[in-house]
Amino acid sequence: MRNVAIVGAGLVGSGWAIVFARSGATVRVFDAEASIRASVLDRIRESLAEMRSVGLVDEVEAILARISVADSLAEAVAEADYVQESVFERVDVKTAISLAIDAAMRPDAIVGSSSSGIPASAFTEGCRNRGRFLISHPVNPPHLVPVVELVPAPWTDPAIVPFLRAEMERFGQVPVVVNREIAGFILNRLQGALLNEAWALFEDGYASAADIDATVAHGLGLRWSFMGPFETIDLNAPGGVADYAERLGPLYHSVAQDRTDPKPWSDELVGRVAAERRGALPSEALADRRAWRDGRLMRLVAHKQAQKD
Amino acid sequence: MRNVAIVGAGLVGSGWAIVFARSGATVRVFDAEASIRASVLDRIRESLAEMRSVGLVDEVEAILARISVADSLAEAVAEADYVQESVFERVDVKTAISLAIDAAMRPDAIVGSSSSGIPASAFTEGCRNRGRFLISHPVNPPHLVPVVELVPAPWTDPAIVPFLRAEMERFGQVPVVVNREIAGFILNRLQGALLNEAWALFEDGYASAADIDATVAHGLGLRWSFMGPFETIDLNAPGGVADYAERLGPLYHSVAQDRTDPKPWSDELVGRVAAERRGALPSEALADRRAWRDGRLMRLVAHKQAQKD
Repeated sequence: MRNVAIVGAGLVGSGWAIVFARSGATVRVFDAEASIRASVLDRIRESLAEMRSVGLVDEVEAILARISVADSLAEAVAEADYVQESVFERVDVKTAISLAIDAAMRPDAIVGSSSSGIPASAFTEGCRNRGRFLISHPVNPPHLVPVVELVPAPWTDPAIVPFLRAEMERFGQVPVVVNREIAGFILNRLQGALLNEAWALFEDGYASAADIDATVAHGLGLRWSFMGPFETIDLNAPGGVADYAERLGPLYHSVAQDRTDPKPWSDELVGRVAAERRGALPSEALADRRAWRDGRLMRLVAHKQAQKD
Repeated sequence: MRNVAIVGAGLVGSGWAIVFARSGATVRVFDAEASIRASVLDRIRESLAEMRSVGLVDEVEAILARISVADSLAEAVAEADYVQESVFERVDVKTAISLAIDAAMRPDAIVGSSSSGIPASAFTEGCRNRGRFLISHPVNPPHLVPVVELVPAPWTDPAIVPFLRAEMERFGQVPVVVNREIAGFILNRLQGALLNEAWALFEDGYASAADIDATVAHGLGLRWSFMGPFETIDLNAPGGVADYAERLGPLYHSVAQDRTDPKPWSDELVGRVAAERRGALPSEALADRRAWRDGRLMRLVAHKQAQKD
């Protein structure tokens, strides 16, 4: 994968352009919106400058020099070994862009979609090269958060998955393989499970949203930022995970047994959480807080990269 | 809370001694085991030296000078404004130590138990001063991970909770209030919800334990190390949490609906996860990996403290 095409150059697509270009690939970017095509290189330059300020990249212009903007989808895709598609997440939009990529791609190229929820089987069935398509779902922004979920459709060529896994590792990402399609893939299912418990605890009056948040941000989340849940419990009992499961499995089973009748997040419940959040952070302060989050995330990533192991 | 007693001086209790002493309190430590009494100050000195190496404390001996070891429970507790109890987690053990503290304490002192799961109502009912007892559950080690769950028993004096919350904040901890008792409190219920989904995804063959771990350690866990789950989603949709819930609530509800028949973590399933973990990390390497974890945790905490907001 030396030549990469980026299709859809919003926040996700422009982050992907950085991922590939910083490791030396030639990147051609296309977006159907002329205004996005006109601004994407400036946005990428700004992101790279921020990354350089915390030591995440050494150079800005040399990386930028490997990224160009194409005037058409066909021009971006024609030579590509790999196409990363990051257009709006709706089945009809994904279907149309996949067919357009399919018509323009080399038959031996690979096409990964940044879809966070719609599986590839929902929008690639009609593609001539459908065996070359799969989900390659990042966390936003992909140039900072390295995980990528690779999710093949039933018709994806099985040889693609280990190949793309190795290539994504070479580009500095952390690919994980979801062996077959499931709603939410792995990442959003894990997030959803924790969120569902958080909403239920809030609804039943056990704690405020702020205190539930603090339990994660100043407790659970610390180890989880460098170890997964299985490794965490494996190291948390003298005899490892089996020892831990024997001690605490019954407690965790009881947590699940309390939640066998899940209700949707009701408007009334969402309204109560939203009221608490807007009391803590008014709507007009959301943008500043997002900038704070992005800065914290970037400095955390720099901290993690500075660790020796 | 100027005078603090630590009852039970293992890993948890000695960490608590650091929490109180680093903020200026006078700390008296008691453990029923003579060998623990004999070694606790050396262990605390080692922890403080490690903390100084990453800038988490300025001084070692000055903090240590505020900690002394008592020869009896009564001597440790007699003058204390606050007693932090961290003995072995079994109802009979907790009951016996609570009665002993009760007999020795000032009637206006507060007693917090480090219990991670057993609620205070299970072991303080017979105490003369039972209104002064509650759970004060840290994450291990309390001198690095700041969250503390405060969980009153039905008979805990309600005025204690806001008082102890403010005092814990003064000591640099992040207290969260669990308004009434529930199995697992908040922290372990959130952990359990995520673990239950992780076990189910592994059991159904969607991903390896290593890939599920990577999804958290290189994805979800990054933001969660400085923001909770509600704030994360509040910032992740243009219109905040209500906007997010409208977009993604149905997906998360479907995750819950897939798990309405939870099974215990079976021996066979635990064995398969344990086999993968022991392939990645042999039993004889667990201790080294725990040391790695502790170092990473300490450096992460130093990184977080260095952030301006």
